[in-house]
Amino acid sequence: MASEFDIIRRHFTRPVKRALLGVGDDCALFAPDPGEVLAVSTDMLVEGRHFLAGADAARLGHKALAVNLSDLAAMGAAPRYATLALAIPDADESWLAQFARGLFDLAQAFGVELVGGDTTRGPRNICITVIGTVPPALALRRDGAKAGDEVWLSGCTGDAALALAHRERRIRLGDAALAHCLARLDTPVPCIALGLALRGIASSAIDVSDGLVADLGHIAARSGVAVGLRYAQLPRSRALKACADERLAQQCLLAGGDDYELAFTASPDARARVEALAAGLGLTLTRIGSVGAGGPGAVCVYDAGGSIMHIASGGFDHFGS
Amino acid sequence: MASEFDIIRRHFTRPVKRALLGVGDDCALFAPDPGEVLAVSTDMLVEGRHFLAGADAARLGHKALAVNLSDLAAMGAAPRYATLALAIPDADESWLAQFARGLFDLAQAFGVELVGGDTTRGPRNICITVIGTVPPALALRRDGAKAGDEVWLSGCTGDAALALAHRERRIRLGDAALAHCLARLDTPVPCIALGLALRGIASSAIDVSDGLVADLGHIAARSGVAVGLRYAQLPRSRALKACADERLAQQCLLAGGDDYELAFTASPDARARVEALAAGLGLTLTRIGSVGAGGPGAVCVYDAGGSIMHIASGGFDHFGS
Repeated sequence: MASEFDIIRRHFTRPVKRALLGVGDDCALFAPDPGEVLAVSTDMLVEGRHFLAGADAARLGHKALAVNLSDLAAMGAAPRYATLALAIPDADESWLAQFARGLFDLAQAFGVELVGGDTTRGPRNICITVIGTVPPALALRRDGAKAGDEVWLSGCTGDAALALAHRERRIRLGDAALAHCLARLDTPVPCIALGLALRGIASSAIDVSDGLVADLGHIAARSGVAVGLRYAQLPRSRALKACADERLAQQCLLAGGDDYELAFTASPDARARVEALAAGLGLTLTRIGSVGAGGPGAVCVYDAGGSIMHIASGGFDHFGS
Repeated sequence: MASEFDIIRRHFTRPVKRALLGVGDDCALFAPDPGEVLAVSTDMLVEGRHFLAGADAARLGHKALAVNLSDLAAMGAAPRYATLALAIPDADESWLAQFARGLFDLAQAFGVELVGGDTTRGPRNICITVIGTVPPALALRRDGAKAGDEVWLSGCTGDAALALAHRERRIRLGDAALAHCLARLDTPVPCIALGLALRGIASSAIDVSDGLVADLGHIAARSGVAVGLRYAQLPRSRALKACADERLAQQCLLAGGDDYELAFTASPDARARVEALAAGLGLTLTRIGSVGAGGPGAVCVYDAGGSIMHIASGGFDHFGS
């Protein structure tokens, strides 16, 4: 059977260019460029919780890195390095090769070097730490939203949750809608270019991983403001528009999670710059609400008539009931 | 039931002083001091593999951080930050409080700030990434050993493996020996001060986690040299000296693992400086062998008569049979 060191050498060791030292020593060594600081984030994906047993290994390698890079995007950081800690029940060479392919394909696309990690036997668990760089004054923190700011969303939310609802047989999507939603669930693309472009423009930002309302709640709480969302203005994919179950559609839009879009706030004065960068990047950016002074931490969703809507579900919580 | 965010707030959020931004945003932000680079290492501990179900939570919090800090010690890096990703089967408040106490007590002792992480439900798994700083030219890499260097070891090896042998009923230790060996297994103390003191003195270093011979093999392979160990000169604890099973004693000494001592190489010219720093730090440092030019990657163990010994077992390998 392959040894731990064989596995690391065969599947997870690639030459590094930017780092001073990569895989193969007690630590990796690297430094930010002058004027920049490091932005670091860690996410752990557990079989049976974040992905199903038997999930496609290449897509899993992609997603495990993508959800981490999404945190760098939300900080306006440029991706640089990653470490991978991997527990697997057995040293399945084919699984490892596919997983590594998915991971390195995405890493290469965003200039990320794998600089270290750990491989052990155990219930399947993937823990990645990503490291990016950003000039500290330009970092897109959660605590900078101000009353009067506008709330923006990239792309749209709800598609990953729709795919999950289909997998769990709560709805039945058509072939085209299913393919679209499954890609959103299994191979999300982190909004790195958008995060970089929002430096100096957004007053706060977060990536939508737990659900739109819950994640905007984090901005509201950290910034000491309230956020108002206009439900009718929330962008919807074709698949979501076609969903006949209005309650499910609402849940997916507002609380679905796994979207990996960026929600951010910006002053109304910045509106033209936001629209220009959307055009430049070929992205859809939608104004979905505004920031108010009252009720720090609150997120209210308003219907087309201006009344507060009762929301059926909060965001995703790993220890919730 | 406590939510994921409650758990993080209650148990894993402490104010940071050195970092620009700690727990609670998409990323943590920090930078090395001028002239220093970051040293980063990741270790994953899995229940049933690295610790038993029902293991004391405070000791587990200590050990999970200690084994990571040991990698920083082996690099000559000063510990600065850590992230924690934690999968637990349920949100047991008492377990979490104890685990956090063990982790933060050690973190505080070494000036480490917890700056981020992830908490999720799943089979118990602890993944910590530590970040230290070191001037790049002074980092204690594995690839700097030169023919003619002497091989040194801090403390002694084998006690943690003896404790494990006792737990697995392969031997029966007396009370005092058991207490000593269990402390070495469950609450190892990383050799941070030694790593810092060896900057500019050691030509290479590694922490002994997989077993003395296996870990010196990593230095030999990376440095393109051979290492010769003199078995009779290996330091032994009182507990190991009292072990009547000579074969087990040899396995524990040479291949036991979980020792978290530092093995390092240094020029004979540096011998007086090594001995002076040992005295200054109140540590035992023992010359256990030498570096030769032949057979790159090889580690040979010599008996008192100068003959090569046949070694019963290699180092610990998570995918070995």
